[in-house]
Amino acid sequence: MARTPPIVALTPGEPAGIGPELALAIADQPLDARLIAITDAAMLRERARQMGLDVEVVVDDVPDAAPGDGRIVVHNVPFPGRVACGRPDPANAAALVECMNVAARGCMDGRWQAMVTGPVNKAVINDGGIAFSGHTEHLARIAGADLPVMMLTSETMRVALVTTHLPLADVPDAITRPRLLRTLEILDNELKMRFGIAGPRILVCGLNPHAGEGGHLGSEEIEVIEPALAEARRLGIDAVGPLPADTLFTADRLAGAAAVLAMYHDQGLPVLKYAGFGKAVNVTLGLPFVRTSVDHGTALDIAGSGRADPGSLLTAIRLAAQLARGRDH
Amino acid sequence: MARTPPIVALTPGEPAGIGPELALAIADQPLDARLIAITDAAMLRERARQMGLDVEVVVDDVPDAAPGDGRIVVHNVPFPGRVACGRPDPANAAALVECMNVAARGCMDGRWQAMVTGPVNKAVINDGGIAFSGHTEHLARIAGADLPVMMLTSETMRVALVTTHLPLADVPDAITRPRLLRTLEILDNELKMRFGIAGPRILVCGLNPHAGEGGHLGSEEIEVIEPALAEARRLGIDAVGPLPADTLFTADRLAGAAAVLAMYHDQGLPVLKYAGFGKAVNVTLGLPFVRTSVDHGTALDIAGSGRADPGSLLTAIRLAAQLARGRDH
Repeated sequence: MARTPPIVALTPGEPAGIGPELALAIADQPLDARLIAITDAAMLRERARQMGLDVEVVVDDVPDAAPGDGRIVVHNVPFPGRVACGRPDPANAAALVECMNVAARGCMDGRWQAMVTGPVNKAVINDGGIAFSGHTEHLARIAGADLPVMMLTSETMRVALVTTHLPLADVPDAITRPRLLRTLEILDNELKMRFGIAGPRILVCGLNPHAGEGGHLGSEEIEVIEPALAEARRLGIDAVGPLPADTLFTADRLAGAAAVLAMYHDQGLPVLKYAGFGKAVNVTLGLPFVRTSVDHGTALDIAGSGRADPGSLLTAIRLAAQLARGRDH
Repeated sequence: MARTPPIVALTPGEPAGIGPELALAIADQPLDARLIAITDAAMLRERARQMGLDVEVVVDDVPDAAPGDGRIVVHNVPFPGRVACGRPDPANAAALVECMNVAARGCMDGRWQAMVTGPVNKAVINDGGIAFSGHTEHLARIAGADLPVMMLTSETMRVALVTTHLPLADVPDAITRPRLLRTLEILDNELKMRFGIAGPRILVCGLNPHAGEGGHLGSEEIEVIEPALAEARRLGIDAVGPLPADTLFTADRLAGAAAVLAMYHDQGLPVLKYAGFGKAVNVTLGLPFVRTSVDHGTALDIAGSGRADPGSLLTAIRLAAQLARGRDH
């Protein structure tokens, strides 16, 4: 069946980093998506020239219908600051945030079907006078989403997190019944609606080692996690646990599950990234649109060298396109 | 060069679990070690009879010089309670602890060169009126060791822990400069002396996500971990970090390192156990003798069924023998 590929809006991110050259590097890659880059077209042309890349940068609001032919269509957002590889200029901060906003609004008003974000430096944007704690939080705010849920996917597993970027000492108090239940609802819903998985089984980690060992190693499993899982099951969610995190990640267990829900960052991500061989993609659940992200930073030290690997960006775009197609993929 | 294999004392552990049948199962396995089992010989004979195993159980204090010939030499410690697969009897608690003590004393007085422990149920031993929080703590106490360090090894990596079995909420306060420094000293020393690794590089995880991201996600890296690592480096320890745990476990990084030091249980063990495919071995560092352990529990539900896999026990015995030989292996 012929089908129009979804339109994916890409924000290449910090111009002093590797984002722009990755966007250029994929211009000759076949994609089952129509791509539009939200960035400064002149900056992109200059980077192509500097690196000797034969890519045609076209300013247009009509996304490229035939990706892979060595051209890239750009929705132009001029950068007022200076652009030099390895040296971010905070004067570009507002424009970088505007790129995100343009992409998100385009997704919300239905012009585009998904967005993919390249890396930015939080500190540089804050230095530019704009309070910014990360893409995920920013996109949730402008989309009016109550709880963005971070999930990383690799070829072998999906791991979602109840808490993300907060000090370890703050994690236990942040795990509440309402938050855990809402996270499970969002995860269950998106696994069904976007990933097309019927009756997704979710393996839920305990908070404490050995999932608390019956209360001997912490009470949060008994007081918070088990009641939240019981409530989730009453709502029809196939949530299994709380399980000890150290014995949960076996091939047998993972084979029967759609996703793992870890309580915090370093409980779930080391094993996912180890298993993913650097090919993990970050997906934000709980937004009114599809958003994926590369799983690396701006890599200021190698920007412009041609050594940056576009693998994560390609995987992020392919997953975004797949999720935008939803159940029918 | 001909060499007498080291003597390894094995405590098969809880008789209602799979420990005894695993000890019987390895009687026909070639080992580069002389083995002596510390347990109830009559119990072992009865289990062999029940399961139809053709193993000769010999009570003797001279370890088996030729393992693999279908016999097992036992230092007899009679169990006063009942023995039935799947149903532990707390009346055996004191005898089970005596087995550990006999093995440890035999190692400390030089009769034996290493000990390997099979699984017990902590709750059953406590129900038997003996305060017991685990093999590691018990052996440290009777050996007068100030800080036992738990390390798990698999074919691809070694992961040691600064804290082990305590609630996650108690972890941040338990990570102190003296404890971290002492852990690094023990780890460095045993990697050199027992594992025979010259100048072992140790990759040290941060406590917080992204290793605290310069103080934005927690201050323990700056206030505790970095000063302890600086002191360790002044002592000649090649300690690298603190590193973000989620990006530390890559093949490249692990290839150049002797071990990873994780701050807590679920930061380090999920990835090790995933990578080890169930073949991990637990090693206790900081004792005056070599001690390894199987990486599984008593498995009461399958005891006596013949379905228990002796792989972890074999790996634990082989590693114990290797470590007992020390630098010259």
